[in-house]
Amino acid sequence: MSKSLAIAVIGATGTVGEALVQLLEERDFPVASLHVLAGSDSAGQAVAFRGKNLRVRELADFDFSQVQLAFFAAGEEVGRQYGAKAHAAGCSVIDLSGGLEQALPVVPEANAECLAGLRAPYRLASPTPVATALAAVLAPLRAALGLRKVTLTAVMAVSSLGRAGVSELARQTTELLNLRPLEPQLFDRQVAFNVLARVGGVEESGHAVLERRVSGEVKRVLAVEGLKVAVTCSVAPVFFGDSLAVCLETAGAVDVAAVAELLAQQPGIELVEQGDYPTVVGDAVGQDELYVGRLRAGLDDPAELNLWIASDNVRKGSALNAVQIGELLIKHYL
Amino acid sequence: MSKSLAIAVIGATGTVGEALVQLLEERDFPVASLHVLAGSDSAGQAVAFRGKNLRVRELADFDFSQVQLAFFAAGEEVGRQYGAKAHAAGCSVIDLSGGLEQALPVVPEANAECLAGLRAPYRLASPTPVATALAAVLAPLRAALGLRKVTLTAVMAVSSLGRAGVSELARQTTELLNLRPLEPQLFDRQVAFNVLARVGGVEESGHAVLERRVSGEVKRVLAVEGLKVAVTCSVAPVFFGDSLAVCLETAGAVDVAAVAELLAQQPGIELVEQGDYPTVVGDAVGQDELYVGRLRAGLDDPAELNLWIASDNVRKGSALNAVQIGELLIKHYL
Repeated sequence: MSKSLAIAVIGATGTVGEALVQLLEERDFPVASLHVLAGSDSAGQAVAFRGKNLRVRELADFDFSQVQLAFFAAGEEVGRQYGAKAHAAGCSVIDLSGGLEQALPVVPEANAECLAGLRAPYRLASPTPVATALAAVLAPLRAALGLRKVTLTAVMAVSSLGRAGVSELARQTTELLNLRPLEPQLFDRQVAFNVLARVGGVEESGHAVLERRVSGEVKRVLAVEGLKVAVTCSVAPVFFGDSLAVCLETAGAVDVAAVAELLAQQPGIELVEQGDYPTVVGDAVGQDELYVGRLRAGLDDPAELNLWIASDNVRKGSALNAVQIGELLIKHYL
Repeated sequence: MSKSLAIAVIGATGTVGEALVQLLEERDFPVASLHVLAGSDSAGQAVAFRGKNLRVRELADFDFSQVQLAFFAAGEEVGRQYGAKAHAAGCSVIDLSGGLEQALPVVPEANAECLAGLRAPYRLASPTPVATALAAVLAPLRAALGLRKVTLTAVMAVSSLGRAGVSELARQTTELLNLRPLEPQLFDRQVAFNVLARVGGVEESGHAVLERRVSGEVKRVLAVEGLKVAVTCSVAPVFFGDSLAVCLETAGAVDVAAVAELLAQQPGIELVEQGDYPTVVGDAVGQDELYVGRLRAGLDDPAELNLWIASDNVRKGSALNAVQIGELLIKHYL
């Protein structure tokens, strides 16, 4: 990579934006100049990058023709509005917000080749953390398994709602342990010592907007013909890290040892020993790898594979995947 | 019910045993005399029943020919050894421990009729809390749906390991909030702010012993020919209450409104409004009802039904189901 780009990070003061800037530095991303942007609330704050403090500037005033690549790690509405504005100014966009509808979801391990037919400026999306983790783990298994259906239960961290989610769980836990009455904020009820059966908006059909999004992203990224994906997204009292219970229906009897070998060979995946299991705290959080375990064929169905994935929702699920999309662009396309 | 029985509760000082004694009183179970029994550690403690304090006696010394019905709410080994001893003495046994292998698992809403072919003394089992909740919710849907496969992710409470599980979560949470180093006890790692991908022993196949047990119990209780059941049992930092994410494969397109009507009519089930969802804290815990919500057909498959169950693992999942088996016995068989 001999090129070097002018880059913008939008939402640079959020949990994901912060991780993004850190990863650009850690991975020696070819940054010629870095513009850290946010809403007026956060403008003026400082973000550390390569030993300097960069001043956060206000997004509304920014001229996107100054940069070649922009990461959108703020809210959906920001992604929709300013993502389109950046693209119109000739800037390639990697959207983490879900707002930029025309953007193509990319998980480099799974569908890097889909960029080949496109032209700059690119409009790409890093899928939801849950879809990213699932697609990255299933990608190396697609050919061997003959995937027919994925049934996913995601047990998500409160940081899925950003820094506010983290504060709210800490506040609720402290209140309860001090036997003070609890008035839930942010979440619609107590999340401490509870499991919420849904997060965010819900459709008339009963599916959460997030569940439909995860299902759509997984299908689009994996591109397995006729694949069905069933999704339940719940939230547990966990600060960081998503846990995914996955049940796969396959074309024929599953060879668990062969699956384990495929996963063990895959960069970015850490397969834990049979008998042990991975968790978010202690394994996945703070790591670039997706932790996979509990591989087992069906109890009643040899054409079934069950597994468990522990993933850092902020890092691998969001920021790292976005940076990896950026690396792919730089290497081949920009 | 004009009969009145001499009854023993084994493990009367544990979380489930305590709830059992309380329910016998609340539901006006026809108790002529109540013998509360436990291991030598707990013998001598007092258990309140109908305004009196009953002294807990040591199990090893007890003569089971004195009682007609015994509830076993202690460990598996106790259920195996003393359940057999009680049965040999002519006492009917309702085993909650999983230890008495010859016992027939019963969830009255689902398979009350299976008692008809048996003779006293009975050997019956109240299944695991997870299997009990699932079977009770699926029972009224069996005929309408044509069930083919159940895929279950159970997110269980730490009280699945009894009072010690509750203490350990409280201890870990306090240590972490006070920034003290954590040394996990009881669980094999940190459970506070984490999700464990398994509980208890594991087979060479990769399935947890508990998962195979849940699957077997659900199939036996529902008695739907050819039914496949896939199970993942995880543990979340929740004191009481199991959350079940359930995905059903059915014989034909699911009529969600018809399913909702069937569930709404079923005693013991509280169907929450579409758009809302049930949780263990605030809904299920402390209640006799199973809370059901998030009913929705498949995103990609009309022959799929998804739902969420919140259940009090100690009460409906264990103690209440056992008492309901007892009520069934008294009404028709003892």
